[in-house]
Amino acid sequence: MRIVSLAGGIGGARFLRGLKAAAPDAEITVIGNTGDDITLFGLRVCPDLDTVMYTLGGGINEEQGWGREKETHAVKEELAAYGVEPQWFGLGDRDFATHIVRSQMLEAGYPLSQITEALCARWQPGVRLIPMSDDRCETHVVITDERGKRAIHFQEWWVRMRASVPAESIALVGVDTAKPAPGVLEAIAEADVVILPPSNPVVSVGTILQVPGIRDAVAAKTVVGVSPIIGGAPVRGMADATLAAIGVETSAQAVLELYGRPLLDGWLVAQEDAGVALDGVTVQARPLLMSDPDATRALAGAALDLALDLAR
Amino acid sequence: MRIVSLAGGIGGARFLRGLKAAAPDAEITVIGNTGDDITLFGLRVCPDLDTVMYTLGGGINEEQGWGREKETHAVKEELAAYGVEPQWFGLGDRDFATHIVRSQMLEAGYPLSQITEALCARWQPGVRLIPMSDDRCETHVVITDERGKRAIHFQEWWVRMRASVPAESIALVGVDTAKPAPGVLEAIAEADVVILPPSNPVVSVGTILQVPGIRDAVAAKTVVGVSPIIGGAPVRGMADATLAAIGVETSAQAVLELYGRPLLDGWLVAQEDAGVALDGVTVQARPLLMSDPDATRALAGAALDLALDLAR
Repeated sequence: MRIVSLAGGIGGARFLRGLKAAAPDAEITVIGNTGDDITLFGLRVCPDLDTVMYTLGGGINEEQGWGREKETHAVKEELAAYGVEPQWFGLGDRDFATHIVRSQMLEAGYPLSQITEALCARWQPGVRLIPMSDDRCETHVVITDERGKRAIHFQEWWVRMRASVPAESIALVGVDTAKPAPGVLEAIAEADVVILPPSNPVVSVGTILQVPGIRDAVAAKTVVGVSPIIGGAPVRGMADATLAAIGVETSAQAVLELYGRPLLDGWLVAQEDAGVALDGVTVQARPLLMSDPDATRALAGAALDLALDLAR
Repeated sequence: MRIVSLAGGIGGARFLRGLKAAAPDAEITVIGNTGDDITLFGLRVCPDLDTVMYTLGGGINEEQGWGREKETHAVKEELAAYGVEPQWFGLGDRDFATHIVRSQMLEAGYPLSQITEALCARWQPGVRLIPMSDDRCETHVVITDERGKRAIHFQEWWVRMRASVPAESIALVGVDTAKPAPGVLEAIAEADVVILPPSNPVVSVGTILQVPGIRDAVAAKTVVGVSPIIGGAPVRGMADATLAAIGVETSAQAVLELYGRPLLDGWLVAQEDAGVALDGVTVQARPLLMSDPDATRALAGAALDLALDLAR
């Protein structure tokens, strides 16, 4: 069985761990969001790819959900002592090594997809992890604050400001000329089903779907999504702030309509959202909270079962 | 009083600490060797500049003589886990931050001299530290081993092989077109005296003197050197291996002749080398071991006193 999943960071990575447990023999290809990627201190940081890689490879900081376990912060403290900005992005020493290897390989001319494969050779995540594109696309956010109206990098808005200033619009800079990374369209074409984890529908899954060619390829398959919204609130994170930026309500119904047809075939919502509906989409109510490994496996299994049913 | 000193790594840095103590009111300009510089993991590492900066700035690992105090090695261990080479160069986490800042500034187009000034703004070494050149010159060593005759980077020979294979020749690659960094020739021209610490005469002081224009500028001043050799053996390090590579005996006499006239005006040797002599050079025997801060200050003070006497 071949499964493709489009994933963002923490929520996506945890869901994927459940999917691996639910379908241990499946060939799972994960197409990772790179719109959050940022160059810090001259090093290329790919937060979502790394969160998936560390989570599935057993190196994640479980409590935090991102970054490495047993992490120290000597490099960050030293950079601060030099007065080097930014100091609001929390990179640990172990994590720095990943960015150093990646940056060195980028400098040597390797595309991000090959670099990700090389990093995964160590982590053995048990899935094939491919960045959505080897071309640099960065999510930028337009805000207005005391410095006026301006566009800032997504991470500055998300991490530094904690989305405290409303996003007026969100743009994936560079996406017009971006191509899917090698293997992305092939993996989708060969997939039995495509699963959308409860990742952010705007800046994670939505970003991946913007890369030319990916949305059409996905829509041609049987696709089941898991709602990232339960009863009007994001399960975790600040998905509401990104939905507001594109004028979409924070509800399981609104996100269902955002993905819409022909993309989606099935949609999993929480019990309290059981009334959600869209023509042509099979909606099922299931426990959505990934509160422990069993619950996560059950949720992923439910999404997969629905997808396989619909694919018959 | 204005003093210029040409310095390599550990020995030079310790001597300079003594010189600062001996002449607390002097304006000291240190011209640092950059022939040892190496790019590791895509980051530019300047071992001698950093050893001077950390030593005079209070951040050095005193026992080791190089690197940062209270150092950890998470980044290095992670790079090893990724299988990234080389693993024989010991970079600590705190030290990595320095190389990250430097590399980011190089990438942004700053010359090494400005970067060194920026790093020193934090460390406040109490001297003006200038790299010998902003142009990249790297010391390469020709060896013959089981892989045949080949040229390798100085650090590979020095650190990885610990100079266990004889150096057949040593070349400063790129020196022909290198220019002294801004301020180097000016500092020498304005100096009352020039002091050569007991740094390696071949790959530290000798390297600096190879940058076109520096030797002539230094030779025009009153120059006192401190022998790095006591009774036929290097005080520390492996200076004998580098002297052998250029066909020079490991003796205070041979190094005196290597520097020679018109460069040198005075030469400090140990008591057991009291017979050393060269026409036109005033030789004095002094305790050369920098065994503690007082002995180091006394040695630097003796070099400075001789230089000031000769400059009158």
